[in-house]
Amino acid sequence: MLAPIDFYFDFASPYGYVASHHIDEIAEKHVRVAVWRPMMLGAAFKTVGTGPLVNYPIKGDYMLHDLRRTARAEGFSITLPPGFPHATLAAARTFYWIADNDEALAKTFARAFFDAYFSTGEDVSPAEATADIAASAGLDRDAVLAAVQDPAIKERLKRETDTALERGVFGSPFIFIDGEPFWGSDRLDQVDKWLETGGW
Amino acid sequence: MLAPIDFYFDFASPYGYVASHHIDEIAEKHVRVAVWRPMMLGAAFKTVGTGPLVNYPIKGDYMLHDLRRTARAEGFSITLPPGFPHATLAAARTFYWIADNDEALAKTFARAFFDAYFSTGEDVSPAEATADIAASAGLDRDAVLAAVQDPAIKERLKRETDTALERGVFGSPFIFIDGEPFWGSDRLDQVDKWLETGGW
Repeated sequence: MLAPIDFYFDFASPYGYVASHHIDEIAEKHVRVAVWRPMMLGAAFKTVGTGPLVNYPIKGDYMLHDLRRTARAEGFSITLPPGFPHATLAAARTFYWIADNDEALAKTFARAFFDAYFSTGEDVSPAEATADIAASAGLDRDAVLAAVQDPAIKERLKRETDTALERGVFGSPFIFIDGEPFWGSDRLDQVDKWLETGGW
Repeated sequence: MLAPIDFYFDFASPYGYVASHHIDEIAEKHVRVAVWRPMMLGAAFKTVGTGPLVNYPIKGDYMLHDLRRTARAEGFSITLPPGFPHATLAAARTFYWIADNDEALAKTFARAFFDAYFSTGEDVSPAEATADIAASAGLDRDAVLAAVQDPAIKERLKRETDTALERGVFGSPFIFIDGEPFWGSDRLDQVDKWLETGGW
């Protein structure tokens, strides 16, 4: 049994969204499982001394252009909600709360959240909006609202984020294959090749 | 006759070095010419508020790892000289001085400089070392040393760098196809596809 690959991302990361369209397919092609691990990227930005791409003059404009072009090439579109990027605490906590019982359902929720955040043009990061999305994926809305305030779930997300930082995660998406790190949706070709060849 | 594509880079940019292995081949495949345009990236970093990747904690370490892995996948190796990155003024000026008479010879010099800078582990950015490399490419050493101090050549590089900034260049490599911008050696697949399809 081959070890799972770790897929770290922030729910407010558009390149994380791009990678989310491919990571499971790439893993399955090589008889692996991709474990999705949402984290709070802001903590990593503080450590490294960087910030959201969109905040940089010129580079931020290019990023929007590149994102839309990349999405078009793959057959979807990206609209950033006003106020982007948001802290997506509620979505990340909801994910882990679901994943502890049903990892497949957690991914279904994650995809629905990503789609809503990056296509409707609405800010779905608040707990109420996040719970609506979870409800549309079949979860109990009130249970979600309770979960995002549950100290154990809060601690769980904090621990996952701390572990990500300890492993050297500084951006989203960030993928580990047997300890080998890959940053960025534009490295998915190397991820695929690494899984194919066992590394080089 | 299709318009040339512009290949902006800094001689101290290792991802520029990676792209230099491919850009002419990609251009020629689509009946285009790649015009090489060395520039001083430091000016762009100031405008955008970023800096050399290697200066960021954690992210800089990853960059070195990613560079070596990327180079290995393509059959070459990368060694950064001590004190990396350097201002490669002499190399960029030498390039334009040669290119004004012989663009092919300028590329031959550029490849030789890149190879020396990223493989010998020596700092070849000073004018004397740069002139040695130009001499090995068949140029007159003393003429090179004079050229890098020539006010007209200095002005030429400044103008090229200013134009790059006006066009939105903030990193290296940076490629334009009929005005469409692509940043990074990891976007060469999109460059190839854009040339193939005419855009999407």
